[in-house]
Amino acid sequence: MIPTIEWKEGVVRILDQSRLPDEVSFVDCKDYRMVAHCIRELIIRGAPAIGIAAAMGLALGAREIDTADYDKFIVRFSEIADTIASTRPTAVNLFWAIERIRGLVNKNKGKSVEDIRSLVCDEAKNILEEDISSNRQIGRNGAKLIEDGDTVLTHCNAGALATGGYGTALGVIRAAHEEGKKIKVFADETRPVLQGARLTAWELKEDGIDVTLITDNMAGYMMSRDLVDLCIVGADRIAANGDTANKIGTYTVAVLAREHGIPFYVAAPSSTVDGSISSGNEIVIEERNPEEVTHIMGKIRVAPIGVSVANPAFDVTPARYITAIITEKGVFKPEEIGKTLGS
Amino acid sequence: MIPTIEWKEGVVRILDQSRLPDEVSFVDCKDYRMVAHCIRELIIRGAPAIGIAAAMGLALGAREIDTADYDKFIVRFSEIADTIASTRPTAVNLFWAIERIRGLVNKNKGKSVEDIRSLVCDEAKNILEEDISSNRQIGRNGAKLIEDGDTVLTHCNAGALATGGYGTALGVIRAAHEEGKKIKVFADETRPVLQGARLTAWELKEDGIDVTLITDNMAGYMMSRDLVDLCIVGADRIAANGDTANKIGTYTVAVLAREHGIPFYVAAPSSTVDGSISSGNEIVIEERNPEEVTHIMGKIRVAPIGVSVANPAFDVTPARYITAIITEKGVFKPEEIGKTLGS
Repeated sequence: MIPTIEWKEGVVRILDQSRLPDEVSFVDCKDYRMVAHCIRELIIRGAPAIGIAAAMGLALGAREIDTADYDKFIVRFSEIADTIASTRPTAVNLFWAIERIRGLVNKNKGKSVEDIRSLVCDEAKNILEEDISSNRQIGRNGAKLIEDGDTVLTHCNAGALATGGYGTALGVIRAAHEEGKKIKVFADETRPVLQGARLTAWELKEDGIDVTLITDNMAGYMMSRDLVDLCIVGADRIAANGDTANKIGTYTVAVLAREHGIPFYVAAPSSTVDGSISSGNEIVIEERNPEEVTHIMGKIRVAPIGVSVANPAFDVTPARYITAIITEKGVFKPEEIGKTLGS
Repeated sequence: MIPTIEWKEGVVRILDQSRLPDEVSFVDCKDYRMVAHCIRELIIRGAPAIGIAAAMGLALGAREIDTADYDKFIVRFSEIADTIASTRPTAVNLFWAIERIRGLVNKNKGKSVEDIRSLVCDEAKNILEEDISSNRQIGRNGAKLIEDGDTVLTHCNAGALATGGYGTALGVIRAAHEEGKKIKVFADETRPVLQGARLTAWELKEDGIDVTLITDNMAGYMMSRDLVDLCIVGADRIAANGDTANKIGTYTVAVLAREHGIPFYVAAPSSTVDGSISSGNEIVIEERNPEEVTHIMGKIRVAPIGVSVANPAFDVTPARYITAIITEKGVFKPEEIGKTLGS
């Protein structure tokens, strides 16, 4: 699998997901502004992946601050952190990664700026490594929920491309596949940005997993024909009560799953749990550019000029629709997630 | 409003809906084969509209049969009818129109072929006229269900473009608007062919009705935020028990509507009721070309080459999800539709 993001001797190399599946190309970010741009423009996307990108962006930022004085360093460092934090509002992993690096910088106040730069860089690399191993553990924990012969429906891309590697929802599917279970996957194309068509279908096909692409509005039809055994999706933020923000359309899949008596699982690292908010009502939903809806991949217009458009990028699935949340620390009932993992 | 389909001195002029909203152009069909092509390739679409097109195609076909002998005429006429009937399997209006013309031809066996040609042509024009007046009556009947200030969600295009003019679901919206009610509309874009984005948003915008375009997977989010008061959709075939086939994704809208306690209405002419089938299980669902999913408007590819795709063009909404069916003959509970209108 091609790495989603890598640290290469002071350059953050990001796989350009906006060009997939047609073109495999990379953006080499030499400063934090370029990393922020990549997050904002969905060149890198997926909650865990943008957490990693944020950490690596801060590592680049720390190298750019030309001072040996800690007080001067911390002022500038905070500005850089704020810039990166402002790129996207919904996924908590972004803020989680920034706070983790901020905490490290504060804790090492007594050290030289040079040493702090080096610690930040190591921490960013740690976050990447931990994410990959966390995904593998999510995969092992979740694979137990998939039986041989099952068909799984997934929405958006919670795969290797959304993470440091391996994936959360797709990590569970990969782990079941690696265990030798024969499974099929329906991938919702996931309008407007088509992460399901462009990324999930591509990832699974590359891995030799049986995947069928459908438009988002076909999920209900497939369920009504008994063609779906379970649903697994990723998450951008999980509130203390288990309410889960994820890509727009996830809520609809959850409602359909309950209507058909199909289990609906969320797979995410524990860093996606935001114990500071009691319910999904407090999650800010990002409203993105209307052109994502009116134009496909920025290329062809499919709607009349000047039409009004809504483009919420996420929705919130209330905990009552979620069968369980699969994390690297175990599989939890949604109502348990806050007291178990919320920090 | 630009006519969807017209009879112009022996030519069937069809508005090319595959090019909307970018380009307003027409296909002038001089023979029945061209009409069949237009139906198959969605140049004209929408259950009532393809019924009208079928009738006009038969009128062209009848003119092409170079014989004065009724027996020779009827053999060739049946072949033409079969060709037109084979274009699309789901919408019953296609078969209804063909049977109506066939019945007329049979009933007038004693007349000259020349007279029969002329009767067929008049009947095709009648079907168009009746459809428009039927839509206006559907609009009046349905408008009572919309209150001033309501927001209506619709799926696909059941508008002037799907009919002889005015529309069924959009006819209801138009009638409410003409009565001076202030209403808003959410139009689902309706993947894969994007009839909502390309046609419904365009029609309503042209008429000065407040329309907001959303992707199909946003409907649940809008309902969860209490932004939708009722749903109205069209129909391609209604079984005797009220089960309704309509554009893929309609079933999902119906499940979401029930989950949120929102009324879900079907608007259709009585010719859409197929009393010969007892339930929706008997409705044949058309599976269309995978390229409609993998390529947008035949132009840009949005999925990996060679990926498996499902592309059912319709789904069936069981009667229990339908609040009422709005027809030109009145508003009916779905369970009453068969005994009241099924023929």
